[in-house]
Amino acid sequence: MDAAALWQRYQEWLYYHEGLDFYLDVSRMRFDSEFVEAMQPRFEKAFQEMEALEGGAIANPDENRMVGHYWLRDPDLAPTPEIKQQIVQTLEQIEAFAQKIHSGEIHPPNAPKFTDIVSIGIGGSALGPQFVAQAIAPDFPPLAIHFIDNTDPAGIDRILSQLKGRLNSTLVLVISKSGGTPEPRNGMVEVQKAFAEQNLNFSPQAVAITGESSKLDRQANSEGWLATFPMEDWVGGRTSELSAVGLLPAALQGIDIRAMLAGAKEMDTATRLPNVRKNPAALLAMSWYFAGNGKGEKDMVVLPYKDSLLLFSRYLQQLVMESLGKEKDLDGNIVYQGIAVYGNKGSTDQHAYVQQLREGVPNFFLTFIEVLEDRQGDSPFVEPEVTSGDYLSGLLQGTRQALYENQRDSVTVTIPQVNPRMVGALIALYDRAVGLYGFLVNINAYHQPGVEAGKKAAAAILDLQRRVLQAVQEEGAPLSLTELAHKAGASDQIEAIYKILRHLDANQRSVVLKGNLGEPSSLRVSAI
Amino acid sequence: MDAAALWQRYQEWLYYHEGLDFYLDVSRMRFDSEFVEAMQPRFEKAFQEMEALEGGAIANPDENRMVGHYWLRDPDLAPTPEIKQQIVQTLEQIEAFAQKIHSGEIHPPNAPKFTDIVSIGIGGSALGPQFVAQAIAPDFPPLAIHFIDNTDPAGIDRILSQLKGRLNSTLVLVISKSGGTPEPRNGMVEVQKAFAEQNLNFSPQAVAITGESSKLDRQANSEGWLATFPMEDWVGGRTSELSAVGLLPAALQGIDIRAMLAGAKEMDTATRLPNVRKNPAALLAMSWYFAGNGKGEKDMVVLPYKDSLLLFSRYLQQLVMESLGKEKDLDGNIVYQGIAVYGNKGSTDQHAYVQQLREGVPNFFLTFIEVLEDRQGDSPFVEPEVTSGDYLSGLLQGTRQALYENQRDSVTVTIPQVNPRMVGALIALYDRAVGLYGFLVNINAYHQPGVEAGKKAAAAILDLQRRVLQAVQEEGAPLSLTELAHKAGASDQIEAIYKILRHLDANQRSVVLKGNLGEPSSLRVSAI
Repeated sequence: MDAAALWQRYQEWLYYHEGLDFYLDVSRMRFDSEFVEAMQPRFEKAFQEMEALEGGAIANPDENRMVGHYWLRDPDLAPTPEIKQQIVQTLEQIEAFAQKIHSGEIHPPNAPKFTDIVSIGIGGSALGPQFVAQAIAPDFPPLAIHFIDNTDPAGIDRILSQLKGRLNSTLVLVISKSGGTPEPRNGMVEVQKAFAEQNLNFSPQAVAITGESSKLDRQANSEGWLATFPMEDWVGGRTSELSAVGLLPAALQGIDIRAMLAGAKEMDTATRLPNVRKNPAALLAMSWYFAGNGKGEKDMVVLPYKDSLLLFSRYLQQLVMESLGKEKDLDGNIVYQGIAVYGNKGSTDQHAYVQQLREGVPNFFLTFIEVLEDRQGDSPFVEPEVTSGDYLSGLLQGTRQALYENQRDSVTVTIPQVNPRMVGALIALYDRAVGLYGFLVNINAYHQPGVEAGKKAAAAILDLQRRVLQAVQEEGAPLSLTELAHKAGASDQIEAIYKILRHLDANQRSVVLKGNLGEPSSLRVSAI
Repeated sequence: MDAAALWQRYQEWLYYHEGLDFYLDVSRMRFDSEFVEAMQPRFEKAFQEMEALEGGAIANPDENRMVGHYWLRDPDLAPTPEIKQQIVQTLEQIEAFAQKIHSGEIHPPNAPKFTDIVSIGIGGSALGPQFVAQAIAPDFPPLAIHFIDNTDPAGIDRILSQLKGRLNSTLVLVISKSGGTPEPRNGMVEVQKAFAEQNLNFSPQAVAITGESSKLDRQANSEGWLATFPMEDWVGGRTSELSAVGLLPAALQGIDIRAMLAGAKEMDTATRLPNVRKNPAALLAMSWYFAGNGKGEKDMVVLPYKDSLLLFSRYLQQLVMESLGKEKDLDGNIVYQGIAVYGNKGSTDQHAYVQQLREGVPNFFLTFIEVLEDRQGDSPFVEPEVTSGDYLSGLLQGTRQALYENQRDSVTVTIPQVNPRMVGALIALYDRAVGLYGFLVNINAYHQPGVEAGKKAAAAILDLQRRVLQAVQEEGAPLSLTELAHKAGASDQIEAIYKILRHLDANQRSVVLKGNLGEPSSLRVSAI
């Protein structure tokens, strides 16, 4: 395609939303009009299904749940007055709470104001808040946020160490829908212990964001925690950023949450249009379908050219992969769906792996994210008439072009600034694109059955550990792994037992291993 | 394969390095003995080529350079006494410099001690130092490090804002081999401007890490910078962490750099052994080859189960993708090689995308990284007899098992702790695995020809911007894009011009756009 034809194609496909000053360019995806036409019936079906979903249909049949994160942005769309009321009230409660925390009206027992937040949550309860904090929190927010997003003891210690001397003015958010997920539960227990060690009372500094009547909800109530905010049944973890999960930490950091919601609402409206060419989420979903042949044959590399959007690629990684990575379609056929997503930021990643993108295995398509505003205020020239921002912009354009010339397709999203409204709009855009793509390929984009398997297997390992410890303690003489496995009633799990012991031994816990650690058959185990 | 056979396979393939207390398990890659045998001749050739490379052969024919990062860890291996001398001296200079900075013997003009570091570099000059800082810097290092790793004006502003009030005690490292890479050059210019605005003298607080006689070297000399450290010609960016590039920032943060080097040296020795089964780097390279059929058909997902190793996956992303992502093999055949790498950390990522890994598109293999020590000191129980670390360990084991049951292969690396010695060993392990894999698939793993293309294209865009600005300024009346392109002598680049103008306009720079921004043909351009 020559320059003139390419320019024609660019203009033909350019999507522009005037209200948001938002652009989407899919002209560098090499689909032809035949493909677009062939997709039309699929999209008609997808638009209908999306409408039903927004209307409150049970769109998550496995879990018998409605999918309602769209209502959060426009409570008038909620299917019942009760749900509408709940959304409006929660928002008001979040704002009121944040305001009282900022003013000091609500303060910890031993300090005039809260200074820090520790947010304990994992997956959907961490990635959204982390992305938003990095993207749009002020440089010096009223409360500085720290995340415990794992069950790594050393990681927890590092966060607690950062808070040294300020635990008495730290607000602890525990975010867990059921309260049963082990990682946040463990983080909470460890933080409670740190409070106890400093003779601090945990409850007046603790806030739960959880499902109604969950285990965590009951604990917060019975222990008299400072506050509780709802995690609605009809909001999935990976689409919860615009529920209390994301809005409470954002408001506490001084972020304009009404603007986030307004941006999302505006994008929701734009992506509700049942017209592929005029609907940016449909254009994205179509591009993904084209790139991977509707089967995820190409990875999605996401490169925001803006430091503050670094975590957007991780946010999308979860949203896209957990939603679309499914074994079965809605008819029960084995389909092994999904799209792998990775990326950090441009132009930094050009010096990391654009070498492979340009020349190596062509197993991907790109999403460039461009931000028009370079910074607040003027820029110095780094060369005559040229700024750092001109370089960033030129590197994006240049890379897109160099990749295209090598047959590597790309989508480009352009936004005016990184601000709360645009972040809301981006979240909404991708929510919808993922939903539409899910319908296009006929899968349930709103459950995650595969996550359970790892959890169950982990629980089985912990159960085995208990049996192993008991067997070791009961036995006087040192045991070989085979003997120990037999005694623990787990003769077929010697490998798991070996690893359990190696881990316990490394932490001086209850067992001693003698022999060559690299030769499991040589090992003898005894109680410490 | 039943449990007994699997346990047999596990023991048969388990690699253990007693000195490093390091384990590698490739038993969950489903290769058979036939495959191993077939790889033997390829490995023999690869081992020979690696030996020649270490001996100083020109292993990077395109750039006519030796590949010498192995010598940094064992100067006795350097091919000439001069190189050996240089390595030893540089190391001593780094230690002496760091010691003087820590003691205050070297201090900035307006403060008794340096408190912070701003490290300006991109790609290999950023990822290694970032990974190492996060992995092993003390919680309260003698100097706190901040990174400018891009040419994003807002990103630079954020770092400068964090340093508010402490710029007078900030040590600036500028890391650039040629001094010509735009991103670090721009970062330097912006930081110099910030110094000037506060009437601070830049040179006594500035340190260059650069190639001998480079543009940056000459600037540092002529301006009288505080110090200069070498970036050797025979060290590539992505393998430079154990040169001054990585060692200087590490030493300044109080990290034991001799231990890093010692760990790397010990691993280098282990991975020099021309015996696949007894060489962990060869076992890795063989596993990669098996997974992707020697063509990168599967992505490498890297999951360290340890918060402090979060950036190791990004470090590997660069090392692997930039080294292996090549269009041509050494004989000039088009091969489109490479292995895509992504990942963050476990168990966090289990709540992000293990859903897709377990159930979705099977286009990947996994690398689990296990750390045996949970934390320094004892752990509380989060349940009877169970710690947070037991959960982390159980989740790793459980996930590995659940994925294997679904035909998803994995490699597991196990290390005793995250400490300088182990970090050095991990860096060396992957250096070598990438080098061996490069020889296995017959590509040059030590150049990056594709990076130039994006740079050149970007330079062309900036050149076009200059011409466009000139044309707009010369013209009185508003111009359409087509007219402007014609005047600028770039009629075939209207799209690029449109984007240049959109960016300039958004930053109130020299041009005004009238019309509908989403309809390029409607636009009229004039000077501000």
